[in-house]
Amino acid sequence: MADYDVILKGKYPGKTHARKVAEYMKSKSKAVGGIIYLEGQKTKMIEDNDGEAPFRQRRYFYYLTGCPLPDCYFTYDIAADKSTLYIPPIDADSVIWSGLPTSPKEALSLYDIDDVVTTPEIVPALARPLETPTFYAIPNQVSDHVSLVGFEHKDFAVLKEAIEECRVTKDEYEVALIKKANAISTIAHTEVLRRVKGAKNERELEAVFLERCIANGCREQAYHSIVASGTAAATLHYVDNAKPMDGKLNLLLDAGGEYGCYAADITRTFPISGTFSKESRSIYDIVLRMQHVCTNMLKAGALWDHIHLTAHEIAIEGLLRLGILQGDKEEILRNRTSVAFFPHGLGHYLGMDTHDTGGHPNYADKDSMFRYLRVRGNVPAGSVITVEPGIYFCRFIIDPYLADPVQSKFINAAVLEEYWEVGGVRIEDNILVTESGYENLTTAVKDVEGMAGIINGS
Amino acid sequence: MADYDVILKGKYPGKTHARKVAEYMKSKSKAVGGIIYLEGQKTKMIEDNDGEAPFRQRRYFYYLTGCPLPDCYFTYDIAADKSTLYIPPIDADSVIWSGLPTSPKEALSLYDIDDVVTTPEIVPALARPLETPTFYAIPNQVSDHVSLVGFEHKDFAVLKEAIEECRVTKDEYEVALIKKANAISTIAHTEVLRRVKGAKNERELEAVFLERCIANGCREQAYHSIVASGTAAATLHYVDNAKPMDGKLNLLLDAGGEYGCYAADITRTFPISGTFSKESRSIYDIVLRMQHVCTNMLKAGALWDHIHLTAHEIAIEGLLRLGILQGDKEEILRNRTSVAFFPHGLGHYLGMDTHDTGGHPNYADKDSMFRYLRVRGNVPAGSVITVEPGIYFCRFIIDPYLADPVQSKFINAAVLEEYWEVGGVRIEDNILVTESGYENLTTAVKDVEGMAGIINGS
Repeated sequence: MADYDVILKGKYPGKTHARKVAEYMKSKSKAVGGIIYLEGQKTKMIEDNDGEAPFRQRRYFYYLTGCPLPDCYFTYDIAADKSTLYIPPIDADSVIWSGLPTSPKEALSLYDIDDVVTTPEIVPALARPLETPTFYAIPNQVSDHVSLVGFEHKDFAVLKEAIEECRVTKDEYEVALIKKANAISTIAHTEVLRRVKGAKNERELEAVFLERCIANGCREQAYHSIVASGTAAATLHYVDNAKPMDGKLNLLLDAGGEYGCYAADITRTFPISGTFSKESRSIYDIVLRMQHVCTNMLKAGALWDHIHLTAHEIAIEGLLRLGILQGDKEEILRNRTSVAFFPHGLGHYLGMDTHDTGGHPNYADKDSMFRYLRVRGNVPAGSVITVEPGIYFCRFIIDPYLADPVQSKFINAAVLEEYWEVGGVRIEDNILVTESGYENLTTAVKDVEGMAGIINGS
Repeated sequence: MADYDVILKGKYPGKTHARKVAEYMKSKSKAVGGIIYLEGQKTKMIEDNDGEAPFRQRRYFYYLTGCPLPDCYFTYDIAADKSTLYIPPIDADSVIWSGLPTSPKEALSLYDIDDVVTTPEIVPALARPLETPTFYAIPNQVSDHVSLVGFEHKDFAVLKEAIEECRVTKDEYEVALIKKANAISTIAHTEVLRRVKGAKNERELEAVFLERCIANGCREQAYHSIVASGTAAATLHYVDNAKPMDGKLNLLLDAGGEYGCYAADITRTFPISGTFSKESRSIYDIVLRMQHVCTNMLKAGALWDHIHLTAHEIAIEGLLRLGILQGDKEEILRNRTSVAFFPHGLGHYLGMDTHDTGGHPNYADKDSMFRYLRVRGNVPAGSVITVEPGIYFCRFIIDPYLADPVQSKFINAAVLEEYWEVGGVRIEDNILVTESGYENLTTAVKDVEGMAGIINGS
């Protein structure tokens, strides 16, 4: 049994998270007392239809409960250090159609909670005023029927911030969930490699990826897969996944399953034939080097902005060597020309959301190199971050650079002409930052020979 | 090439539907004039997340446009017989990430529409008052920025009714879409039969079903699959699909893909080993007979309530023969005892919604036999309806009958004891009603020998 499977036999540490959140709140204000209040996601119907919409548990709620059920409430009395979960009661009509729901007794054995009662209890529970009666909740996530008249103070700001900041550093259980999501997603990635030669359409490979994920326990995808063949890989948010593959060089597969509400986010790019063209191999080697060097820079306190800049430096060196870029390296860096080929950020925090909380991006940054960087500043030990450099040949992005005299002098259009069919290359792993370095949670093959071996069935 | 594939090379008949809807409106009131206004579904984000929520086109809009794009508008000038589609314009920022959107020229070639412009045109278009200025729309489906001051009259009732009633009878193109969804879903059903012996967990079979659907062109499921092994099949709305299959007798698979916004809805029940137990086979034969007889009663004008009643009569005869029921057939029917074993309705209209519009159910019916019947009254030629009888052994449903002296005298509890492991049997096909009879659009195998042949790989 894998190490993460042993850890996952325990409970999701909801109570530990409640305490961590309360500590964060106390660090912001000495007067903290009262109750933390959270609502789970409600059951919603598909519009104009009698079927239920896909359910996704609300992350703020899950973080303190580990409870995946719909229509629940949660309170945590900070002074008493007592957590209470409110779950839906038995509804006689629905038992006939859906069977028995989880009982409070079962819920108590499943989740790391001090007390479990049914949802009708939430209104009287909140009617009892507390000694220091402050009510902490998330904006717009308090139901209309929940009365707050018993509370002298209401705070709709600090709780959200506290949970979002606490989520940045993962504990052992959360890391195990991400490892499990990675292990299952790796099975699925590997199966796509095995099947890529025989596929006629991208959708067949998306189907294979989903099949392996669901069969192995990732019922939900962490995000909409990108299954992009040929030049489609240059479209960063390609979601069509339905193009014929005949005549295409490479496949870019950006896909990850979700396990227990935690995401994997893995990208691999590989030759459909098993062998990269000369141009594709050149680009792949640059991106692999960007990924290798940047990953090795990670440890507690490392400045993410600096690592992202390093990725650009390696890209520039590589593209200069190939003759796609021309001129002085420092001047190219200063002019941000490499952004034409690597327009997105190096990575993002990963957790319950694929783009997890606490990254403090600045999408208004005037510097094009940092505008889309989803994490700014120093990364702490315990954070999980994706390292996902890429080089793309996207006409919509590169054409304006070619039309701009300041930029175009750094780009050799004739050499560039040979590279459009490469499409785009991205390599993405999920990295746990540690005090002394890092642990790579992604084990999917990425060396050229290893991928070729699987594609060729050898 | 299949007949339906030839038909599907044409355009979805949105304009024909617009005229059909206008005709219906005119049949309700002589004063009909003005414009029909519809909005497509908007792009929505996942709560507290930067990813897009799953998109499902709004059915009212799709019926008159055949356009699957998000964030669109539609007008139909009734007097001028002119339809106009408003699609999102190019957004420079999003082109970099997502590529070029569909252009008005492309949209005009793809959809059955007289004119296509971009969405900023909708506000000025509605500002021009018409000769008979009535504005017909769906309640709560008009955006705030759309001003209706140019319209003397606003009608938020008749359009919804008109579309819902018009949708009951399908044209050739709609039938072709349902046939295509059925053909792909049948591939997926067949693959589950092939894999059922080797599966350890229900989720592996759900995964196989999804894989075959997506690989063959049904990207979306028409509804949440039910993959229920053993006694789980007695839970009518079972959605867990994650139970181990070891030691279970049968699998109930209720699953269908969606193609071009139209649904397939197919249920098969089969022995995991390839061979039904004696009890399972007895129940299967009764349900197959219910399905056979009821399907053969279908033709234009047939009374669905009567066909549903016939299903119960056949169920009672069969259960009497097995000794599960005892006493007089007529008395049992009068007491509604068979509802304990067949608690749901015989079927529903099928189209863009799995439970399609225009069925006029009466969920407040005091008669337990008809309360959940989703279609009441006579079925017209051109309607597509599911015929899905079932017999279930669900303790939550049957126990109250055993506890009720009026009912319990008709049930032989000792004989019943032998049947709990059967779980439940349902057989469901999609039937097109014609003037003289019907056409079964579902070709998935359902005879015992045929299913055994696939399961055993012979």
